[in-house]
Amino acid sequence: MNRWAALAAMTGVFSCLTLAQEATIRRWDIFELSLPGPSEGNPFLDIRFSAVFRNADKTYEPEGFYDGDGIYKIRFMPDQEGVWTYKIKSRCAELDNKEGRFMCTPALPGNHGPVRVRNQYHFAYEDGTPFFPFGTTLYEWPFQSKELKEQTLETLKHSPFNKARFLIIPPWKEHYATGPTKLESFPVPGNSRDTFDLTRFNPEYFRQLEWCISQFRDLGVEADLILFRPYDDGKWGFDRMGAAVNERYLRYVLARFAAYRNVWWSLANENSFLENLTDEDWDRLFQIVRDYDPYGHLRSIHNADRVYDYSKPWVTHVSLQYYMAVRCLGISPMLRDIYKKPIVHDEINYEGNIDKRWGNISGEEMVFRFWSAYIGGAYATHGDAFGPSEDPTWISIGGRLQGQSPARIAFLKKIIEDGPPEGLTPIDQYFENNIAGKLGSFYLIYFGREPLKEWEFRLPQKGLKPGLRFQADLIDTWNMKITPLETVFELEKLNRYTYIDKHRSKIVLPAAPYMALRIRRID
Amino acid sequence: MNRWAALAAMTGVFSCLTLAQEATIRRWDIFELSLPGPSEGNPFLDIRFSAVFRNADKTYEPEGFYDGDGIYKIRFMPDQEGVWTYKIKSRCAELDNKEGRFMCTPALPGNHGPVRVRNQYHFAYEDGTPFFPFGTTLYEWPFQSKELKEQTLETLKHSPFNKARFLIIPPWKEHYATGPTKLESFPVPGNSRDTFDLTRFNPEYFRQLEWCISQFRDLGVEADLILFRPYDDGKWGFDRMGAAVNERYLRYVLARFAAYRNVWWSLANENSFLENLTDEDWDRLFQIVRDYDPYGHLRSIHNADRVYDYSKPWVTHVSLQYYMAVRCLGISPMLRDIYKKPIVHDEINYEGNIDKRWGNISGEEMVFRFWSAYIGGAYATHGDAFGPSEDPTWISIGGRLQGQSPARIAFLKKIIEDGPPEGLTPIDQYFENNIAGKLGSFYLIYFGREPLKEWEFRLPQKGLKPGLRFQADLIDTWNMKITPLETVFELEKLNRYTYIDKHRSKIVLPAAPYMALRIRRID
Repeated sequence: MNRWAALAAMTGVFSCLTLAQEATIRRWDIFELSLPGPSEGNPFLDIRFSAVFRNADKTYEPEGFYDGDGIYKIRFMPDQEGVWTYKIKSRCAELDNKEGRFMCTPALPGNHGPVRVRNQYHFAYEDGTPFFPFGTTLYEWPFQSKELKEQTLETLKHSPFNKARFLIIPPWKEHYATGPTKLESFPVPGNSRDTFDLTRFNPEYFRQLEWCISQFRDLGVEADLILFRPYDDGKWGFDRMGAAVNERYLRYVLARFAAYRNVWWSLANENSFLENLTDEDWDRLFQIVRDYDPYGHLRSIHNADRVYDYSKPWVTHVSLQYYMAVRCLGISPMLRDIYKKPIVHDEINYEGNIDKRWGNISGEEMVFRFWSAYIGGAYATHGDAFGPSEDPTWISIGGRLQGQSPARIAFLKKIIEDGPPEGLTPIDQYFENNIAGKLGSFYLIYFGREPLKEWEFRLPQKGLKPGLRFQADLIDTWNMKITPLETVFELEKLNRYTYIDKHRSKIVLPAAPYMALRIRRID
Repeated sequence: MNRWAALAAMTGVFSCLTLAQEATIRRWDIFELSLPGPSEGNPFLDIRFSAVFRNADKTYEPEGFYDGDGIYKIRFMPDQEGVWTYKIKSRCAELDNKEGRFMCTPALPGNHGPVRVRNQYHFAYEDGTPFFPFGTTLYEWPFQSKELKEQTLETLKHSPFNKARFLIIPPWKEHYATGPTKLESFPVPGNSRDTFDLTRFNPEYFRQLEWCISQFRDLGVEADLILFRPYDDGKWGFDRMGAAVNERYLRYVLARFAAYRNVWWSLANENSFLENLTDEDWDRLFQIVRDYDPYGHLRSIHNADRVYDYSKPWVTHVSLQYYMAVRCLGISPMLRDIYKKPIVHDEINYEGNIDKRWGNISGEEMVFRFWSAYIGGAYATHGDAFGPSEDPTWISIGGRLQGQSPARIAFLKKIIEDGPPEGLTPIDQYFENNIAGKLGSFYLIYFGREPLKEWEFRLPQKGLKPGLRFQADLIDTWNMKITPLETVFELEKLNRYTYIDKHRSKIVLPAAPYMALRIRRID
């Protein structure tokens, strides 16, 4: 046991007193050590180091990374208050055995820790606060001008979105290579396939990504980082770096980013389009992420036409691109039952006007697909694609939102947040395709495109009994209106499957599409 | 090498001449040995035996079974013509080392061998003949009177159905226990929970099941045997026999039935309702079936509300009960993409009039669900439930079919059989929910409930090129009419996704639901 660990072990009070002058870090913030070390040779290849962090029975061992200019860094996200000690391990004598400690103090308000799977199909921050993902897509926003990035953040701030997917390696596009928007830095030194040095990384490039991640964190937005992408067109070669470089790249990314509480790992966008990576390769890449991320951030992969097996144990949630699964109602519950994990429909086409068929659905359709996901106990991710087909605003470059769906998604988000904190559970999902809630107390019923004139009050029997009383709100999901109804419904059993109101009450509906009912128990 | 193997190895001609007087068995028929042995003690527990069958490089080792009255039997399905030798292995001296041989001659016409997975998502008999499953459900037909069973077979003979699911352990029902239809025999000796002897089997009971299987075989119907069932109501205890009895039971079933070429193994109906069997237990039961069935018959399991993981390696195909998956179009392709195995929707509700909600859909709806499955490159299983809710005809007891769907299912079957022999492939399934066929040559398009007035000729671009010419048939799936259209359509590219007819031809549709088009390439 080292000196500080011994001190810390003596008494909490004593340790705290002793440590009062020492560094203090808020829970789930980042403790960063910066150490001088050798700068000759290739530190990215030559020097491995990690640090063991301890606090009571907790131990973590994040890897460190070379940040250029002879500086070695190690980052750590403490998840427990109190005294943490650390000790560096390296074959490099200059780094080895360095030790120290810091005090972890309570998280600031609004910092709830990283997001975890909770209640099997849902999510919560580590402190237990529910997290209902309302995602959006900003593939290339880190590679834009400072002004555009600032605008993107400002837009996000006033949007409902609390998770955004983006690439951490830029896609190849002519204008990134040679145009007015030529990129200044790449993940590795160099600026073309001929000059890229895959044995090194470019710290400045990663610092810019860290700025992006931290800006999201400060807005309360989870950064769903896309680690590999196929969009290379044979030009840069980042889609075919080989197994050794892929591993080194992942470990470098993990060493730099894992201490940010708001990161999620998306192994790839459209993974099967990375044609030289097999599912076995993806297994291995998942395992690397699992093994080198000390904190177990969420891990998934986004498919193209070969769907990865999301039931594998290292996948924390399903990140699906399968439009049909939200184009009709009732399919998300089946996906939950198949995978037994949270279902996130991470690409459901984009609201927009571009000439690609995946980027021109209407606002109504986007909102329908969102409701289709959430009413099935699942989650969805939005995208907004207006303007030039190759570089539409928002999904590609960020900037402003132009679609009609975000306001309606915000409206849905409020309804979900006002619902059961444990998330929506599909109700009677073998027979009903549009009811979710919490048995016995909360029912959300979505009528989708059906322009119904009335609805006879009826609920599936499970969890109910005669005499329970309910009230209902009529929800216009498109016009964003909630109308509380005056009727009180009192349950009576109709048959083995169904309860109805004892007065056989019907609810009058406006014969328009996109209506919903929220039915809540009184008492 | 034993005497007969040596003989056989010398020359084919010599062997044939020599063996002319010996037993000859048609390929994929059953060779059965019957041997006297000990009848004292409990042969079911005490005596294990198997035989090694060889022919050239092929070796199989089926287990034998005790058939009562001091008779031991071993059954074998030869899958290769020529001389087979065998040698019995047992710790029982009376059985051990018995050897012999027989000649396997070509299969009779109509015998195509067992059904295998073929082309990843489809099936074929072992001789390569396509097998397109058109299933039906006859849960309790083996437990009915001889007259009723004969009627069931006669009905089947005139039906489109070439696969039927049935229980091989009866469900508990009052009238099977005490009523006028009291069962005469059970899988084990005894007739009540108190008198059942789970250390023995009842050969007479299994002989009756064998009659059922062989009758199906002779009609060309695959017997999808349901090995375990939950329907016990705490009365007989066959749903909770314990791991050792379950294994012994499976091995007895496999020893008796596996040599029938037309068996499929369905581990259970509504498996999660067998409340004391976990998914790990099912894994183990699957492994027993895999290990003791020498021929690798198809294996699956039918779910209730906890869906077994069909991606496990011992599952050959998906046997799903999830009505939503066929209630809208476009979901079967997703299931194919998820599981990468054939999808059989083995329970999609039943056409009928009973007071259970799973047994009262209309003929139209049943036919829609069938088309929904097949247009998605999947398969479905029918059921017909009329009459008393507890014992409806057909799905429970067999007898006559009363629904309107079987004729339409026969019509669909003919269309499928006239289609690509490799089975239907969903076409452009991320965007299209109703097209399947074979790229470039065969397209089946199903409009479901949409009463369209016209359809502009358009096909997804993959596999097409300008100038290809097609003809179309209008198919009325409910009224069972096929109307060839006179127009010849010649392809022209519309955009990156679509080909259209160069004359922009539209096909006039009758504005009625349940229409389809079959579009086939000319030349």
